[in-house]
Amino acid sequence: MADVAQAAGVSSATVSYVISGKRPVAEHTRRVVEKAIADLGFSVNTVARSLRTGRSSIVALVVPDLSNPFFAQLAASLQEELRVLGLHVMVCDTKADREEERAFLREAVQQRFAGVVITPFRLVAKDFLVLSEAGIPAVVSADLPFGDNDLVTPDARAAIRAALTEVTEAGRRHIAMVAGPRDATGGDPRLNLLRSLAAQFGTALPGRLVVRGEHTREAGAVGFERLMRIRPRPDAVFCANDVVAIGAMDKAEELGIDIPGDVALIGHDDASFASLVRPRLTTVRYPAADVGKAAARLLIERLDGRSVRRTVHVKAEFISRGTVRTGP
Amino acid sequence: MADVAQAAGVSSATVSYVISGKRPVAEHTRRVVEKAIADLGFSVNTVARSLRTGRSSIVALVVPDLSNPFFAQLAASLQEELRVLGLHVMVCDTKADREEERAFLREAVQQRFAGVVITPFRLVAKDFLVLSEAGIPAVVSADLPFGDNDLVTPDARAAIRAALTEVTEAGRRHIAMVAGPRDATGGDPRLNLLRSLAAQFGTALPGRLVVRGEHTREAGAVGFERLMRIRPRPDAVFCANDVVAIGAMDKAEELGIDIPGDVALIGHDDASFASLVRPRLTTVRYPAADVGKAAARLLIERLDGRSVRRTVHVKAEFISRGTVRTGP
Repeated sequence: MADVAQAAGVSSATVSYVISGKRPVAEHTRRVVEKAIADLGFSVNTVARSLRTGRSSIVALVVPDLSNPFFAQLAASLQEELRVLGLHVMVCDTKADREEERAFLREAVQQRFAGVVITPFRLVAKDFLVLSEAGIPAVVSADLPFGDNDLVTPDARAAIRAALTEVTEAGRRHIAMVAGPRDATGGDPRLNLLRSLAAQFGTALPGRLVVRGEHTREAGAVGFERLMRIRPRPDAVFCANDVVAIGAMDKAEELGIDIPGDVALIGHDDASFASLVRPRLTTVRYPAADVGKAAARLLIERLDGRSVRRTVHVKAEFISRGTVRTGP
Repeated sequence: MADVAQAAGVSSATVSYVISGKRPVAEHTRRVVEKAIADLGFSVNTVARSLRTGRSSIVALVVPDLSNPFFAQLAASLQEELRVLGLHVMVCDTKADREEERAFLREAVQQRFAGVVITPFRLVAKDFLVLSEAGIPAVVSADLPFGDNDLVTPDARAAIRAALTEVTEAGRRHIAMVAGPRDATGGDPRLNLLRSLAAQFGTALPGRLVVRGEHTREAGAVGFERLMRIRPRPDAVFCANDVVAIGAMDKAEELGIDIPGDVALIGHDDASFASLVRPRLTTVRYPAADVGKAAARLLIERLDGRSVRRTVHVKAEFISRGTVRTGP
């Protein structure tokens, strides 16, 4: 909604005053802002009304791991988009624990939050009933659809294909994965996608080459060590996300395994960690800023009265750095 | 408050049920838990009562930069400590903007939050009046006292002295600093502390060797570049925090300046970034987990009826890695 301020050529604060009516705005300015809002497809009146009817101005962003910079970047983007509407984002870290996830959904209902944006980790569809019963809009950011909620989801097929191309061109044949836990919501869609695409490259990804763990640095180290004991030893390891990949790098250094010389490593997300480590992590970028922007737009449309379910696909991109072949 | 569960030899969930009364607990178990709570200096009844009197169970953690892993770690620790009391932490990222900081304080009042833990960046003491008038306890985590609020603050003198010892033993004489912005709350206490201790080492820190900027990676790069144009060129650069230091490392690589060969670099906080970069960042560890624990305890005591102001000092520690002399 920084878009509105830009389109109208006014400050974000002015847009906010027009919407909230909290301060007087010159009639001409008001018309310019209202036109900009309408041009961008929003109806200021319904959004404002939904916020006046006893709702709080808080949007909860519920994530499984706030120490993963991907989610911090998502929070920043969501907040930037929502602030000119007078909405405030508060971030809830569930530590991937289902009871914590449910507790935050209950809080959202009790406090009459304006909306929820959530990356579920162990929730199941029925856990969302409390929100829909209370009329609180929810946007899900996840790899798979989730009940009747609006969805922001990656389009990662081309990026994974590009990763597999580089991996196979580098002569790697024994592909393995450090995947997420078995009981996570939807299993691990990143594993399923990798497996189906790997088959097209003539490389299988059998169950014995998949280890599972939480999305943590520690689990990445443990999972990588287990893979390195398999013979023939895997020579390319895909990871559930960048945090897991960095745990794998810790362990490779400890074991004296050269990356990428002995083993190629591929992360997921391109969180800020990925370009800090040496060698720089080759990864699949899922742009957190775009995810936040899409989630904000879906939420605003809901507050604006849209009733049909929508899905937005955000394109992922293969980022070649230094952990598949020696890079810059 | 994981302490309570441990002392009582029961699960955190059981402690929570005893406090909230939401589920029945065996009489014996209840007595054990209540004794553990009392032994640790808390009164379950007053805490529970304050939460029943129309207060929400939300504690807002208000921070200037959620993309700094220090604050993500602080959030995790605070949450861990407060959850057994049935309190939920929601994190508010102000982007170091005073209007955002004030907006979150107003939200805390409107939503009748149970408490606020805050690292103020541009707030001034009178901005806190809305909280004290509403009877909402606030704990400040900052380098300097802040009005009448409880305070968690670093005790960093010994750590900075150790840093200066290593820097001077490495033969460095031209010490400089990339400090925080001039208009931040309290100026930059880290600059003042460094300056007063540097004098004891016979090295001055004149104004021309101090550059200022936001606590961001970009500002770190810009600040470092400005310092590198000064003649004689600084040979040791202290940074306001690790994020700033990593920006300085980006720029050093770009300019072909060797760290630590040409310039020694010292961060602050030991956020998770610090051990990821190569060379690993020498820094002053301010343990986020201990800060969160102390803040939780101060907040619980306030909910428990304490009325006098308290300050907790958390010891910082010098962590020698590879950016002052070549390290492991």
